[in-house]
Amino acid sequence: MLMKASSQSLTEQLSARFAQRIRDRLLAPGARLPSVRQCAQQQSVSPSTVVAAYDQLLAQGLVEARKNRGFFVRESRAEMPAGAPAAAPEHRGTAAWATATGLAGSSRHAPVDATALIRGMFHKVSNKPQPGMGVLPPEWMESTFMPAAVRKVTSTRALQEFSLQYGEPKGDLGLRRALSKKLATLSVHAAPENIITTVGATHALDIVSRTLLRHGDHVMVEEPGWAVEFARLNALGMRLLPVPRRADGPDLEVMAKYCEVHQPKLYVSVSVFHNPTGYCLSPGSAHRVLQLANRHDFHIVEDDTYSHIAPEHATRLCALDGLQRTIHVSGFAKILAPNWRVGFLAANPALVERLLDTKLLGTLTTPALLEKALALCMEQGQLRRHAERIRTRLDAARSRSVKLALAAGCTFAAEPVGLFGWVDTGVDTDALAQRMLDQGYLLAPGALFHAQRKPSTLMRINFATTQDASFWKKYSETVRSM
Amino acid sequence: MLMKASSQSLTEQLSARFAQRIRDRLLAPGARLPSVRQCAQQQSVSPSTVVAAYDQLLAQGLVEARKNRGFFVRESRAEMPAGAPAAAPEHRGTAAWATATGLAGSSRHAPVDATALIRGMFHKVSNKPQPGMGVLPPEWMESTFMPAAVRKVTSTRALQEFSLQYGEPKGDLGLRRALSKKLATLSVHAAPENIITTVGATHALDIVSRTLLRHGDHVMVEEPGWAVEFARLNALGMRLLPVPRRADGPDLEVMAKYCEVHQPKLYVSVSVFHNPTGYCLSPGSAHRVLQLANRHDFHIVEDDTYSHIAPEHATRLCALDGLQRTIHVSGFAKILAPNWRVGFLAANPALVERLLDTKLLGTLTTPALLEKALALCMEQGQLRRHAERIRTRLDAARSRSVKLALAAGCTFAAEPVGLFGWVDTGVDTDALAQRMLDQGYLLAPGALFHAQRKPSTLMRINFATTQDASFWKKYSETVRSM
Repeated sequence: MLMKASSQSLTEQLSARFAQRIRDRLLAPGARLPSVRQCAQQQSVSPSTVVAAYDQLLAQGLVEARKNRGFFVRESRAEMPAGAPAAAPEHRGTAAWATATGLAGSSRHAPVDATALIRGMFHKVSNKPQPGMGVLPPEWMESTFMPAAVRKVTSTRALQEFSLQYGEPKGDLGLRRALSKKLATLSVHAAPENIITTVGATHALDIVSRTLLRHGDHVMVEEPGWAVEFARLNALGMRLLPVPRRADGPDLEVMAKYCEVHQPKLYVSVSVFHNPTGYCLSPGSAHRVLQLANRHDFHIVEDDTYSHIAPEHATRLCALDGLQRTIHVSGFAKILAPNWRVGFLAANPALVERLLDTKLLGTLTTPALLEKALALCMEQGQLRRHAERIRTRLDAARSRSVKLALAAGCTFAAEPVGLFGWVDTGVDTDALAQRMLDQGYLLAPGALFHAQRKPSTLMRINFATTQDASFWKKYSETVRSM
Repeated sequence: MLMKASSQSLTEQLSARFAQRIRDRLLAPGARLPSVRQCAQQQSVSPSTVVAAYDQLLAQGLVEARKNRGFFVRESRAEMPAGAPAAAPEHRGTAAWATATGLAGSSRHAPVDATALIRGMFHKVSNKPQPGMGVLPPEWMESTFMPAAVRKVTSTRALQEFSLQYGEPKGDLGLRRALSKKLATLSVHAAPENIITTVGATHALDIVSRTLLRHGDHVMVEEPGWAVEFARLNALGMRLLPVPRRADGPDLEVMAKYCEVHQPKLYVSVSVFHNPTGYCLSPGSAHRVLQLANRHDFHIVEDDTYSHIAPEHATRLCALDGLQRTIHVSGFAKILAPNWRVGFLAANPALVERLLDTKLLGTLTTPALLEKALALCMEQGQLRRHAERIRTRLDAARSRSVKLALAAGCTFAAEPVGLFGWVDTGVDTDALAQRMLDQGYLLAPGALFHAQRKPSTLMRINFATTQDASFWKKYSETVRSM
């Protein structure tokens, strides 16, 4: 809310707010600012205040005016250093890379600026629970067993022992043993030596791409899907083939066509509690995906990040395939401690050595301290019990959240399960997200989950952070005013 | 030493030893096994025992016989999974990537298998001090302040506070503030917001390459130089331009020619205590390198990994250039705790945002726990005092080691300073390294420091681990027998 009594003028307040949002990438490069009339109405200020504020942004080089079309966030702010002439010729940030690489199919729209999404993940918009968040709220993850485990591994002697050398290339053996047992409960069978620890699941996915793909290769991704994965593959110079994700699995006809035409090398999939829809792969679909993979000789990396809150018996490609051409990836950001950045991958013995080479070339080893603490949490069954509590709590939150969402006029585009709801709002969620930011809420608009940015009325909500009636009240008011 | 009284036959012992060495990559793919006669003589066994052992390796698929040339380690062991048909078509491990990409200049020789070197870094050959090691021995780095700092940041409350959210994208602010101050003592001026923490210096170098380069770009590297850097750039699909490193800096004539012909985008340099030679850049050379960079518009990443044991006043490109087209990279593996994997980079404001995008896409954030502990160690001056002690101890070790090396008939190819000695043995150091492995010593043969593997009589020694007369005794005996 702009404040008349502030020491700053309304113009300054308004321009400062936009400037901050642009710097934080909450307004993505290329995004259009509201029209002067709209903005004046939304902020309850005069049009001349808005004009003056936009002029300030223009003077700061943050936006540009396009004739008869309004004001747009400048595309090249981050990529084109003003003070550093040297950087100009390399002018190719993520977006530029993606453009240069090109996306399969029609690419009239610029690809999604996923770095905006990532920046948003870390940006504290307000102290309110954030519907767009990708993880559970910190207070859900508090525990006594986690600090106890850390204390145990950081006794002076233990700490010196593992800190003063590089450590095991594949990661802490104790953790890999615990992971091997945990995977067995999911019917994924991997010996500790076929597991590699990483800096979170993101790093594991990065290692897999760098090992299996070379520049210009085609990769099948799920759409809607996880924009950070799209952006990373783009940055690596890969060509994305978006496969529509249905309730029971990927669209197999589209996949088959891609295989005929493009010979993709890899398929990136979230089988269980797919992000953002919550879909789970059906056994029949899993079987047919693997048949296709065998026929067309591609690898599959199965991102099982949500396994901690999913049923053990859910269908996993890695379980069916026995890690022949599948690679299992997961982490602990969704259940224990996002900042610990412990993830891992499991693959067949031959492939695991190549993946290890990639890990070593990129980071050498990973820090053992948190891996050892995590191993303790797993060995003693504390993590399992913690996950059970979280599941119960999430079930309750989801049921409250779903009721509120329905009452607010939303419909669910997918059956509400897992951590995320995939919700149809009936209005453009990019515009909605900007409006809700004014209220201190960060949303995850549907456009962010597409390989190519296109308008969407869908948004992803986190069930843990949308059980609060006050959010839905603001939401309803905002939607009505649009 | 092979044991007659063992429960294993001599043949089994010998073949098991070679098999282990091949699996550990201490015998690189493509390397030639000693001739039957040589091996029999070295191991004091009969030629028929050697023939039987080599036959076992052949049967295990670990080596191949080449007509009239002897036995060679199979090239494709890691890349060509036997049990996983799926992986075969992607048959392109690091070595294959490098071959496909090609190196500048004549590339008759296969590029160095740097993964072998990395594997060697982590392999415990024996309990003896290892001359080929790249870090200080663990007992040198033991301290009381380090565990104390960890205890402080892992109090239950502190731990929960930073663990349960992703954390700051650029890394812990406290650490970045401490780093900013430390850099100022090196005349490198970077505000905390222009610093990004990473998973060790290796990760920082990786982020720089991925941000500034695209597939097929030319990169200037120093030769001799750090093989892991060569291998990573190769794996990323870059073309290496090896610039001879002289005592006062890179060969500027060669650099100028490369600039004319190939328009390289990046120059990767260790200015101070260059690895493996120990050379330090002269001010004049630094000035001319920067002039060349300005004229031909390339970036420079300056790897200052050895800064903790180097004089503050040493000439650094980043200091002269003011981080205009230079990027500073360093870490703490050489002074505090290799396994903590804390590194960082500093760059100009515009570039740092692009580098941050690359970090986030690859690993999201980095773990804050060790960053916070490190910040405490730095703030309280403990790290600085520790580094002073290490320098004094290293000076003493170096002077002992140099005397022993000279007495053993070595000559120094570069003035002995810093952590490493660049030593001429007069014999082929690849062969020497294999012979010394039998004695429980891991050497770093000169061939590993070249962008293309070629025979070398040089080797790199670690002054901290070669002060022991017993190593030099074995060394002299082995050299004499060759």
